[in-house]
Amino acid sequence: MTWTIDYPRRIAERRPEGHAPRAPRWTLGFDQPTSLVTSDYLALQVEDMSDPAVGKFVELAGKSRGRGTDHGPQAHEMLTYRDSLGMTNLIALGYWLDATEHARWLQSAALPRWFDALDPATVTCGAWHEVVQVPLDRMETVYSDPDRPFGMAACEGTRRVPTTTNGYYGAARDRFPVSAIDRLEAPGSHRQRNAPPNTLGRRLRAEVGLNAIVIRSGQYWQESDSEQREDYEQELQPKLMAGMGYLKEHAGLEDVLSLRVMTSLDEETLAPRRETSVLGHFARLGTLENWAESHATHAAIFEHAIRKKQEYGDARSVVTWHEVFALQSSTTYEYVNCHGQTGLLSCSPVLLSVER
Amino acid sequence: MTWTIDYPRRIAERRPEGHAPRAPRWTLGFDQPTSLVTSDYLALQVEDMSDPAVGKFVELAGKSRGRGTDHGPQAHEMLTYRDSLGMTNLIALGYWLDATEHARWLQSAALPRWFDALDPATVTCGAWHEVVQVPLDRMETVYSDPDRPFGMAACEGTRRVPTTTNGYYGAARDRFPVSAIDRLEAPGSHRQRNAPPNTLGRRLRAEVGLNAIVIRSGQYWQESDSEQREDYEQELQPKLMAGMGYLKEHAGLEDVLSLRVMTSLDEETLAPRRETSVLGHFARLGTLENWAESHATHAAIFEHAIRKKQEYGDARSVVTWHEVFALQSSTTYEYVNCHGQTGLLSCSPVLLSVER
Repeated sequence: MTWTIDYPRRIAERRPEGHAPRAPRWTLGFDQPTSLVTSDYLALQVEDMSDPAVGKFVELAGKSRGRGTDHGPQAHEMLTYRDSLGMTNLIALGYWLDATEHARWLQSAALPRWFDALDPATVTCGAWHEVVQVPLDRMETVYSDPDRPFGMAACEGTRRVPTTTNGYYGAARDRFPVSAIDRLEAPGSHRQRNAPPNTLGRRLRAEVGLNAIVIRSGQYWQESDSEQREDYEQELQPKLMAGMGYLKEHAGLEDVLSLRVMTSLDEETLAPRRETSVLGHFARLGTLENWAESHATHAAIFEHAIRKKQEYGDARSVVTWHEVFALQSSTTYEYVNCHGQTGLLSCSPVLLSVER
Repeated sequence: MTWTIDYPRRIAERRPEGHAPRAPRWTLGFDQPTSLVTSDYLALQVEDMSDPAVGKFVELAGKSRGRGTDHGPQAHEMLTYRDSLGMTNLIALGYWLDATEHARWLQSAALPRWFDALDPATVTCGAWHEVVQVPLDRMETVYSDPDRPFGMAACEGTRRVPTTTNGYYGAARDRFPVSAIDRLEAPGSHRQRNAPPNTLGRRLRAEVGLNAIVIRSGQYWQESDSEQREDYEQELQPKLMAGMGYLKEHAGLEDVLSLRVMTSLDEETLAPRRETSVLGHFARLGTLENWAESHATHAAIFEHAIRKKQEYGDARSVVTWHEVFALQSSTTYEYVNCHGQTGLLSCSPVLLSVER
């Protein structure tokens, strides 16, 4: 048995009557009642991995997770991506089911203390910190396979439970518990500043509005045999990247605030794994829904994934999954000496200069 | 029937076994499932009421509430207080049960648009905006009488329902639904900046941490006959003000971040009513609990109120009530050209300078 929030519905489900999904899916269940969930992305931005800041960052990240770390994350990962200006971003990602533990970690652990102490005027690297924290009714998840724990699913006290809320347009929305009582609409058109921001040498916060969407959408083929691996790398991955490319290019038009394709790393050796995830920020859930419902790039991804699941059944070893968060008002992210295309810096309606 | 969040408890109640309250109390119930609740304090800061900004502010506030106002508050009030530097603060307070409606109001209504457009360098008044928004599990309320709707209770779709979670130490904590699964602890000692901030001529945000507490504690004796009115003004009110004075004077020691004693005004004429409320910000719930449990000033208030309720029964016409919110991480309030003792400006660990 798992615990869930279950509002009596006053907004209709989008599930078609009598819907039976073509492929099985799982969603995250919680062993105990849970209030606020947190995912915390703390990152370094450097020219490349030879920057001496990398070693220091990796050392601090290692000290700030795992056994013996007070208030440490219940699940943690290391990821990297190259951004649109060619900079390397190295991310320490942590998950907490207890917001107080997370807040204590921010005050006590080596990595966030290092971040807080950086002097933006003199630091030679960039660094950023994006904390996603929502009540549980503003989160939804789906996994194509229940065996391996991805993202928040790696937190103790959670398990993957079968769902049939999948395989139709609107299923992601229906999986948000709050969608039973809230349309999750953005309050207005996304407001962007006109002038490109001056961000280097500064500590700035960027803001994102109510019901903006954060998605982490994962792909895992580490354990695939050569046949499935080849199919993923030559067939599904190009379709996925075409879809992401479409979203990125139409960023302004489509309310895409930020899109990063991250590669998972071994936390100790930093060796890349056959595992990626796309971290996307959207001004509204409708942006994602429109893309999924109307664009050929999504149909190609979806159909390929379904077909392969039907072909291989339980032997399907390419796993896809995602976790999505609908943000509350006034979520802010912090950037130290980062270039102006980092994260939400270029699209935040206001910038907040941090003074201590 | 009203809807409520009900977590299976894993933290024990503080209610003593077999507890029966000495006086009846009521708490707020919601007709429908509700996710985020909002109270929005938008205020003007001037030398006195003769300042020409007052007329403008009152006009804009009037245009931003009531019938015909798109996305307007479901309940609204006008209040005032004199602050520690002798400045008059005039507050337009609004309540929403729908966070999207509130966010739309911020973008469309005359009053918040005026606030957003103020140029801090040239404006001749001060202005501030404190938005309290929490999931429903982080709110608790209590009323000494069910007849009149105070604060959030004036929102359509709510009602006062009898409770027995009152009249013992810890009852306020027990009334927070989330207290069943979360100790509502502040993550660490409250961090204060050392230097007094330079705030005049600037647009700044101040921040408050996870599980900081906002209380609005109300007193109403508008309809009292001369006997009860006299008792209130000569007996209970001085005891209350002694308690508030104690908290204010021990602000640093007691984690009191801000304390304002507000008088309710007629929204049209601005005539004061026989109604006050104390708006308090505390770094942690424990601060309020310690004061209530161990300090003579609280005992005096509590005992007097109970005794009078027992004496007058249903004829008791002095009503006391409160609504309390346990904040999430990174709640920020905004101040334009306000003096440094306003709201959270003097106690925020960081100040954020707003750039558009």
